[in-house]
Amino acid sequence: MSTQVIVLNGGSSSGKSGIARCLQAVLPDPWLVLGTDTLVQAMPPAMRASPAGIEFAADGTVTVGPEFRTLESAWIAGVAAMARAGARIVVDEVFLGGPASQRRWRTALDGLAVRWVGVRCAGAVAAARETARGDRIPGMAAAQADLVHRGVAYDLEVDTTHTEALDCARTIAARLG
Amino acid sequence: MSTQVIVLNGGSSSGKSGIARCLQAVLPDPWLVLGTDTLVQAMPPAMRASPAGIEFAADGTVTVGPEFRTLESAWIAGVAAMARAGARIVVDEVFLGGPASQRRWRTALDGLAVRWVGVRCAGAVAAARETARGDRIPGMAAAQADLVHRGVAYDLEVDTTHTEALDCARTIAARLG
Amino acid sequence: MSTQVIVLNGGSSSGKSGIARCLQAVLPDPWLVLGTDTLVQAMPPAMRASPAGIEFAADGTVTVGPEFRTLESAWIAGVAAMARAGARIVVDEVFLGGPASQRRWRTALDGLAVRWVGVRCAGAVAAARETARGDRIPGMAAAQADLVHRGVAYDLEVDTTHTEALDCARTIAARLG
Amino acid sequence: MSTQVIVLNGGSSSGKSGIARCLQAVLPDPWLVLGTDTLVQAMPPAMRASPAGIEFAADGTVTVGPEFRTLESAWIAGVAAMARAGARIVVDEVFLGGPASQRRWRTALDGLAVRWVGVRCAGAVAAARETARGDRIPGMAAAQADLVHRGVAYDLEVDTTHTEALDCARTIAARLG
Repeated sequence: MSTQVIVLNGGSSSGKSGIARCLQAVLPDPWLVLGTDTLVQAMPPAMRASPAGIEFAADGTVTVGPEFRTLESAWIAGVAAMARAGARIVVDEVFLGGPASQRRWRTALDGLAVRWVGVRCAGAVAAARETARGDRIPGMAAAQADLVHRGVAYDLEVDTTHTEALDCARTIAARLG
Repeated sequence: MSTQVIVLNGGSSSGKSGIARCLQAVLPDPWLVLGTDTLVQAMPPAMRASPAGIEFAADGTVTVGPEFRTLESAWIAGVAAMARAGARIVVDEVFLGGPASQRRWRTALDGLAVRWVGVRCAGAVAAARETARGDRIPGMAAAQADLVHRGVAYDLEVDTTHTEALDCARTIAARLG
Repeated sequence: MSTQVIVLNGGSSSGKSGIARCLQAVLPDPWLVLGTDTLVQAMPPAMRASPAGIEFAADGTVTVGPEFRTLESAWIAGVAAMARAGARIVVDEVFLGGPASQRRWRTALDGLAVRWVGVRCAGAVAAARETARGDRIPGMAAAQADLVHRGVAYDLEVDTTHTEALDCARTIAARLG
Repeated sequence: MSTQVIVLNGGSSSGKSGIARCLQAVLPDPWLVLGTDTLVQAMPPAMRASPAGIEFAADGTVTVGPEFRTLESAWIAGVAAMARAGARIVVDEVFLGGPASQRRWRTALDGLAVRWVGVRCAGAVAAARETARGDRIPGMAAAQADLVHRGVAYDLEVDTTHTEALDCARTIAARLG
């Protein structure tokens, strides 16, 4: 069965979003890109500064609370439903909870043809790109670089440390069913 | 049953997004805001300049093609699934197809407790606000002000011509089941 | 002499930027819009979270330190030089320091044909629009609504509480030399 | 005399803005970043779609007209005045006119301590990064990669093809007077 969902998991500033945009450019069919950023943007602004929602600490650590988890759970179910309804979807994710995060998605995507892709980037390089962006809290890239991959299983991994997003996207595209 | 989905329909620069943000602020539970802009943003950039996707003409008219409709159909199914999974959702929409657009959503949201809200704004005022934003193609507001409401049925209507978004949101909140 | 600089002063969410965009649309010549937001955006990200730079407190108060003032002083001198070099400029400002802020600009703009415009908005309405925007720290609008006008002298004042930005812009345009 | 202005010149998606943000992070004093994007953003929206202003063609070529040049000339004079008034400034530029563009800046910056920096990036890599951004007209990166450097003289050049923006910034910082 041809791939219906590509899940990209990687830390902040690892290059996931760039790879997602490139996948849209290189894949023959139109794919939607949806991810953590889409969900956070859809939430009430007040939840972005609440222990029950999602908090971005000054040192770059991110913590999420029960209200975030509740909305996220429905969000994941809905994204899976979009795929079942025929949309091809690139999920641009940050597995802050590692294997627990993956399990949430795996359960929801049950029965769909999914490719799990780890997006690696050396912590120091991701931190350098975070500085170059200038719009992220310094420290997020370093804090998440390894954390989000621990205990997560992939179909393939790409590494943006020395490889352009477009080349990573081509590698992924070549491995789709 | 308490309201699970609020569908806001109105033309460009009518004030829908402002009302949606205010609903998030005044309603006691956390609500997600998802809409046409979210979907367009999730699509491949190339689809934003293609007759098969969505085209924004220089005179402010917007036309959508078959690839857009296919992805939109899956998107609508997914948003409905999010609501069934427990997320409360404000849908921020532009019914370019009038009653045909509403029918797509009505079918997908079948069985859910929905409030249909028309967001009116006098065409000249919407056009003035479009000028003040400076980031929209001039003409969209005037082209859509009446068009999107023709043949659409509402539970209630608000009008931002002389009323602040926050007051409109309070009116809507007071009418929720 | 025809007006060379229009200084708009008003609190956060009072509608200054909308008026500035409308002035660009209604005035026959091309005008540049430059303001506090341009300056803050040009500064090092680290200065946006430093007592020496500019700090946005959780209650909506904004304080600026000596490094901010030093860069701002050069910025003001440069904007004045642009006007002397022939560019027409709308300055989109927030006089947090009231008459002291105005004095800084007045000194720098000496010899130029300037219109000083107060942009008023009832605090409660500005706060409501802040909620509708969803991207500002709640409280800024209320904290600044009156504060920024105390002791400041204007050539004319407009009030966005019940008047669209485009109409305010037309009022200002009609009063230019 | 210590450097007062750093002029970065490079094509679209060559990595100038990332280097500029990194310079702000690595240099001990606060520096302002101002550039073509700041100027275009300050212009009337209508000038961004006018032969007299600035036009972005579908093939990625950019052309500027007389109204753009008039405002740009005043803008350059003002940025120079900011530097003379004591602000350290990184200029983030695209010399579409090659040596003629450099001459405009050189004349305005006369007497100031300036470092001219060429920001190179292999055309194919810049084009790949343009795809990854997804928010630029495809073709700009390739069209400008060589064009903007022809006949321009530099104090030093950096190349982002295989070097991170932060490392390029450190190279530049080490060469400042």
